[in-house]
Amino acid sequence: MNERTHGGERYGKKIRYDFSVNVNPLGLPQEVQEVLRRGAAHWDRYPDPQCSELTAAIAGYHGIPSEWICCGNGAVELIWQLVRERMPGCAGIVEPTFSEYRSALKSVGCRVRTIALSEADGFAVPMEELMYAIRGTDMMFLCNPNNPTGRLLRPDSLRQLADACRRANVTLVLDECFLPFLAEEKEYSALSLLGENPHLIVIRAFTKIYAMAGLRLGYALCSEAGLWDRVRKQNPPWSVSLPAQEAGVAALRQTEYLEQTKAFLRRERPHLAKGLSKLGLTVYPGEANFILFSMPGEPEPGWLYRRMLEEEILIRDCMNFAGLGAGYYRIAVRTEAENQYILDKMGGRIRNESVPSVSGG
Amino acid sequence: MNERTHGGERYGKKIRYDFSVNVNPLGLPQEVQEVLRRGAAHWDRYPDPQCSELTAAIAGYHGIPSEWICCGNGAVELIWQLVRERMPGCAGIVEPTFSEYRSALKSVGCRVRTIALSEADGFAVPMEELMYAIRGTDMMFLCNPNNPTGRLLRPDSLRQLADACRRANVTLVLDECFLPFLAEEKEYSALSLLGENPHLIVIRAFTKIYAMAGLRLGYALCSEAGLWDRVRKQNPPWSVSLPAQEAGVAALRQTEYLEQTKAFLRRERPHLAKGLSKLGLTVYPGEANFILFSMPGEPEPGWLYRRMLEEEILIRDCMNFAGLGAGYYRIAVRTEAENQYILDKMGGRIRNESVPSVSGG
Repeated sequence: MNERTHGGERYGKKIRYDFSVNVNPLGLPQEVQEVLRRGAAHWDRYPDPQCSELTAAIAGYHGIPSEWICCGNGAVELIWQLVRERMPGCAGIVEPTFSEYRSALKSVGCRVRTIALSEADGFAVPMEELMYAIRGTDMMFLCNPNNPTGRLLRPDSLRQLADACRRANVTLVLDECFLPFLAEEKEYSALSLLGENPHLIVIRAFTKIYAMAGLRLGYALCSEAGLWDRVRKQNPPWSVSLPAQEAGVAALRQTEYLEQTKAFLRRERPHLAKGLSKLGLTVYPGEANFILFSMPGEPEPGWLYRRMLEEEILIRDCMNFAGLGAGYYRIAVRTEAENQYILDKMGGRIRNESVPSVSGG
Repeated sequence: MNERTHGGERYGKKIRYDFSVNVNPLGLPQEVQEVLRRGAAHWDRYPDPQCSELTAAIAGYHGIPSEWICCGNGAVELIWQLVRERMPGCAGIVEPTFSEYRSALKSVGCRVRTIALSEADGFAVPMEELMYAIRGTDMMFLCNPNNPTGRLLRPDSLRQLADACRRANVTLVLDECFLPFLAEEKEYSALSLLGENPHLIVIRAFTKIYAMAGLRLGYALCSEAGLWDRVRKQNPPWSVSLPAQEAGVAALRQTEYLEQTKAFLRRERPHLAKGLSKLGLTVYPGEANFILFSMPGEPEPGWLYRRMLEEEILIRDCMNFAGLGAGYYRIAVRTEAENQYILDKMGGRIRNESVPSVSGG
């Protein structure tokens, strides 16, 4: 496994249950699937390079001007495009976090300043250090809630950070890909700050919340005039496929699905977290549709990952997350049945192979 | 219309017949459509970032090692990625040609040296000038057959050019996206030169030949060791969607569809070209699934384009192709019925609005 295997790790393995990817456990909405099945016959057409219909739908959905929106071939394409557009000399990221911020920054030779999240604090984002790190930085990346920790920055902290970045002329990229899983989505989102702050860029994805990872669709929002025209001109056209555009338009109509998702996770996440704790695993506080935990006294690095693979279950070994290491794992909250299944299988392995400090813990 | 509207121009217009895009008139193969309809339910999965299955299928199809192949989100993504990987100071292109070579080169500040194709020569590629242009150039782009002219470079010229580029340490990018439409595909392809020439990069696309423009899928082939590892590392992961990968694997099985396509075009292209000539239009020699022509004595720039738009027919106005100008148009060879339809509508407009030099021509 190298740092780029995240998100497509299932290939070449025999997997029945994939807990390694953080997509909506309810699956691709039925109506979106229908739209896709009907659409196949006309995918000989080029996609609209401007994504006009989709952009208008997103604008309507958030109540935000179309000109502030740029669609991309997954959020990750936009992250790379933004880094290339800004060409920062120095950028700040917290760690552990989504590894593509660092990969994109490294690709343009940018110096990366790391704010290390501390396990002792439950990986909470340290506001003071973050505010301090703004000095001498051109760009700042923050994932809210953060991946893989699930920790959330409060709205007042968010505003404080965004204001400081604006004053210091620092581009703040706020990745809200996992925010729509939370009942408090609106309250915790930075979307309302966009108008007053052209230094702020919010990233969103259909990938996670609508379980569309295979289709690749994300978007970014920013009120800086001319930004997206420059980005489009500096990149190849048609990057967002026609299936992705059609699925995106249909997905934005799935309000009931969204409510169900939020309600399900609010109920099921604590249940799964509790189950993991009962197995003697250390579960870290968090709010997203995934759970970070560690295994004290793991017999050898990657033990749990390999045991689960033997059960045809894929979990995310966080060994290759900068700022974590051996013994940390992340699993997505899946359906009730799947969650029970993984708890049973983990429990069985931990008990039967009598891992000393865990089974005793 | 600006230079980036090519390929997605139908959006925002009322179009019944789209002759502006050069995709296979037989449409997306039925079996590929079936695969897509069946696939929709599991597109919540991430795509394989390595495109392993697809790459193996392409390797088998061409009888070429997998390591030489890199898949992309359409051929155009690979063109941009290759330019960014090479970062040429000076590059050579013929013109008129596909505009994305120039756009990609300009995006990295590269000086572009143009070899102008001459109408008097029927836009034939001038080998002597091409050979001369290699000096002082880092990279050379050639589309074979060329878009929008349809002119083809002969195998002996191709080999001569590739050899000269290798000796001069110049990267030669040969775009063969339209070659699979020709019965002589194998004979005219540079694929057989790859092994002996690591300076040669061949670009291919599913977009055109399998009518998959909406799905975005292309690939590039090169025997230079380590090239694709570097390209992948320098670009965001998962750029090729799961529908595109699945469709690609299925498309490579469509041997009968390919034979039908080649046979149909061999018959239908001359027929359509003759029809255009009979209307008094000047048809240029070419071999691809599209036809370049001009309208002598056109009443005003874009007249034919606008008249066809009134008929809900979209044709490609070549005004924004560098090296062409007002009065040049390109149309795809479509189905027999569609081709007859456009000939009738064009003929009607030209006669009824009594364009002097054309109706007299």
